[in-house]
Amino acid sequence: MSDATISDALTTDLYEATMALAYLREGMGGEATFSLFVRKLPPNRGFLVAAGLESALDYLARLRVGPADVDALAAAMGRPSADLAPLLGLRFRGEVRAVPEGRIVLAGEPLLEVTAPLPQAQLVETYLLNQVSHQTTIASKAARCVLAADGRPVVDFSLRRTHGVEAGMRTARLGALVGFAATSNVAAATAYGLTATGTMAHSYVETFPSEEAAFRAFARAHPGPVTFLVDTYDTEAGVAVAARVLRDLGHGPGCAVRLDSGDLGELAVRARRVLDAAGLSQVRVIASGSLDEYAVDALVRSGAPIDVYAVGTRVGVSADAPYLDSAYKLVQYDGRPVMKLSSAKVTAPAPKQVFRAPGFADVIALREEAPPPGGAPLLETVMRDGRRTGEPAPLSVARQRFLADLAELPGAARRITDPEPPRPTASEPLAQLTERVRARIAERLSRG
Amino acid sequence: MSDATISDALTTDLYEATMALAYLREGMGGEATFSLFVRKLPPNRGFLVAAGLESALDYLARLRVGPADVDALAAAMGRPSADLAPLLGLRFRGEVRAVPEGRIVLAGEPLLEVTAPLPQAQLVETYLLNQVSHQTTIASKAARCVLAADGRPVVDFSLRRTHGVEAGMRTARLGALVGFAATSNVAAATAYGLTATGTMAHSYVETFPSEEAAFRAFARAHPGPVTFLVDTYDTEAGVAVAARVLRDLGHGPGCAVRLDSGDLGELAVRARRVLDAAGLSQVRVIASGSLDEYAVDALVRSGAPIDVYAVGTRVGVSADAPYLDSAYKLVQYDGRPVMKLSSAKVTAPAPKQVFRAPGFADVIALREEAPPPGGAPLLETVMRDGRRTGEPAPLSVARQRFLADLAELPGAARRITDPEPPRPTASEPLAQLTERVRARIAERLSRG
Repeated sequence: MSDATISDALTTDLYEATMALAYLREGMGGEATFSLFVRKLPPNRGFLVAAGLESALDYLARLRVGPADVDALAAAMGRPSADLAPLLGLRFRGEVRAVPEGRIVLAGEPLLEVTAPLPQAQLVETYLLNQVSHQTTIASKAARCVLAADGRPVVDFSLRRTHGVEAGMRTARLGALVGFAATSNVAAATAYGLTATGTMAHSYVETFPSEEAAFRAFARAHPGPVTFLVDTYDTEAGVAVAARVLRDLGHGPGCAVRLDSGDLGELAVRARRVLDAAGLSQVRVIASGSLDEYAVDALVRSGAPIDVYAVGTRVGVSADAPYLDSAYKLVQYDGRPVMKLSSAKVTAPAPKQVFRAPGFADVIALREEAPPPGGAPLLETVMRDGRRTGEPAPLSVARQRFLADLAELPGAARRITDPEPPRPTASEPLAQLTERVRARIAERLSRG
Repeated sequence: MSDATISDALTTDLYEATMALAYLREGMGGEATFSLFVRKLPPNRGFLVAAGLESALDYLARLRVGPADVDALAAAMGRPSADLAPLLGLRFRGEVRAVPEGRIVLAGEPLLEVTAPLPQAQLVETYLLNQVSHQTTIASKAARCVLAADGRPVVDFSLRRTHGVEAGMRTARLGALVGFAATSNVAAATAYGLTATGTMAHSYVETFPSEEAAFRAFARAHPGPVTFLVDTYDTEAGVAVAARVLRDLGHGPGCAVRLDSGDLGELAVRARRVLDAAGLSQVRVIASGSLDEYAVDALVRSGAPIDVYAVGTRVGVSADAPYLDSAYKLVQYDGRPVMKLSSAKVTAPAPKQVFRAPGFADVIALREEAPPPGGAPLLETVMRDGRRTGEPAPLSVARQRFLADLAELPGAARRITDPEPPRPTASEPLAQLTERVRARIAERLSRG
């Protein structure tokens, strides 16, 4: 797939365009605010890491509905292109307030609020939900791996099983955002300035007459520090062979053996013993193979002598919680607060701010409210009139935001299993407004 | 993200390149065959639908390692570019045999076999695994929705929650491949010639003083058949309003109401009653909201009067099984069959063919074996010397393949819960070769 052939204006659910057209036809170009938030955290999530904002802003800055887009949208609606003339030339000219990437957020807290003429604010829904939901899902999963590893390096091996190449690029970037040490993904390492990692597969070992021949050939081709994969045939024997070759090589710092199958904790103990007996105490043990935060946590708690954890598939697809219950809800139109009443999906009206006081005492408030004592706002204005208010922050800045928030996060929210997320409260003015709007809608409905 | 900036040659795990370099340096350019297969089906999968081949072949045809790629790979390895000179200009010049998209496959059956000079065959591993794993995952999930809907149309609403835009494009295409009737994704509808679908969101209804005003404005803007979303406030009242407006409009064929929350089965009964009482028996009921094959199956079995099922998030991420246990294993190098012995991950050696006899009596055989009685081969040669052997098949052809295979699939494999997949058997020559290679490796290992 080449993105070059995918128009931003068409990367949308059809209904965004049918609604935008109806709004334009009815003269409903008034200012609307939509709020993007996660209704409920998935099981085993004590927090989320805000992500996806940078690619969302790139899209908003780029978006324009050109003549070919109008033709395609008209074809999708089964109508003549002339009927869609009001959409031609549409761009995003609105304001975006958002929680910067890397900050920790909770259920119900707006990650992003868009304020723009209604047709514009509507048309961008699908893309914004896609990017923010996916990237927040992955960043949150990766963050849990960092927590589980408890200071040991974590590296990203996910590219082969992410949902496409784009998802692989995102996963590598978001891993780095939450503190991963390296990625196997060369394109991502190149694009984002990350450390790349990786040496050999089982198939490599199999093409040689013996493991020793395979290791020696590798070292000839790669004079620097090497990592030998030791579990192609028999792991303990493989470690012994690796130790012999590493000793002959002078086993410079940075060398390692990798375990990719079997009982990783038990095999790491044996590998460590063989390496130490050979005087190779500086050679590290890397573990990989079906790892995620649960497995890493169990290994770390068991005291396994594993120095580096490589996570892949299960993190790249966030296997235990591959999506978020995210929503992009209209909260204000033309100066009037709006909310949805149906079923259990009630949403609070009006543009909002989240104030965080120490210990994650978060208050969801109306946008214009003054901060409560000790509370600092999470949402910042990142786009005005369709233009970014500043340069995109480097990844290192986002990482610092994450680490700073993580340091404040209560222990119960950091647990790998059965965490208890902090519960944000609604400010008094927000609670009162919610009640007033609910009553107003109920009255209108009862009048029929 | 713009794919234009992502080089195919860098869309790889670093170790593919370090191995390729070692092979080139050692003069190991002999012909290798790698086999891509799924070791084990995920829980609640009775079959898989082969997918991802077309984008995999596009990649293989495009791939070339240019000077900028060599620089980036060298930087990733921390080495001077000159050391990587052997990689410069590398292209894929090999052969690919594969199961065509849309065919039903089982655990252990090669989806694809690559035969090429070893460095080339190795370098493409990551990309091929990524595309085939992701797309086979999604096609298989979508196929189960088609089964559950039992003849009723299924449509794709997944774009807002797929893992990026690329994944959304794939999901729409793969839905169509297994028989979905339409997609909300305009870019995909445009790119793949699919029917687009979608009308309005809750936010649309909320911006008007009443549901009736919202529906009438929509009909003014969209003179053709309309679908009204009826659950923004109170579903039964919403259906009554929709019925009134539809009657005034003359309710042409193709009109519908959509239910997106609450007890969809119960609400559909009430909606149907209101519509029928208003003489609108031709107006259809569309259901959406957290649907997947399990929910669709339950609704269909309950007799819910739902005419169209819209599936989204859970299908677009294959929520209950978001990845496959796929592998790309070396099975032959330089004329010598190869296999991996470690732990439970034993793989069978040598290039293979799968022969399917009626009733899914599949036999995994050596490539050169004659078919068993009634058996027809699944793998076809789709690329030679790095060039496709024919034009990509239209999606309609892949859909026919799927429907033909589905019609043959045993009932136990079609079940939505606790299906029993057919079990392929190994041919006698393959079983004998596996034993010989195992013994040969064991002997070599015992000699040290």
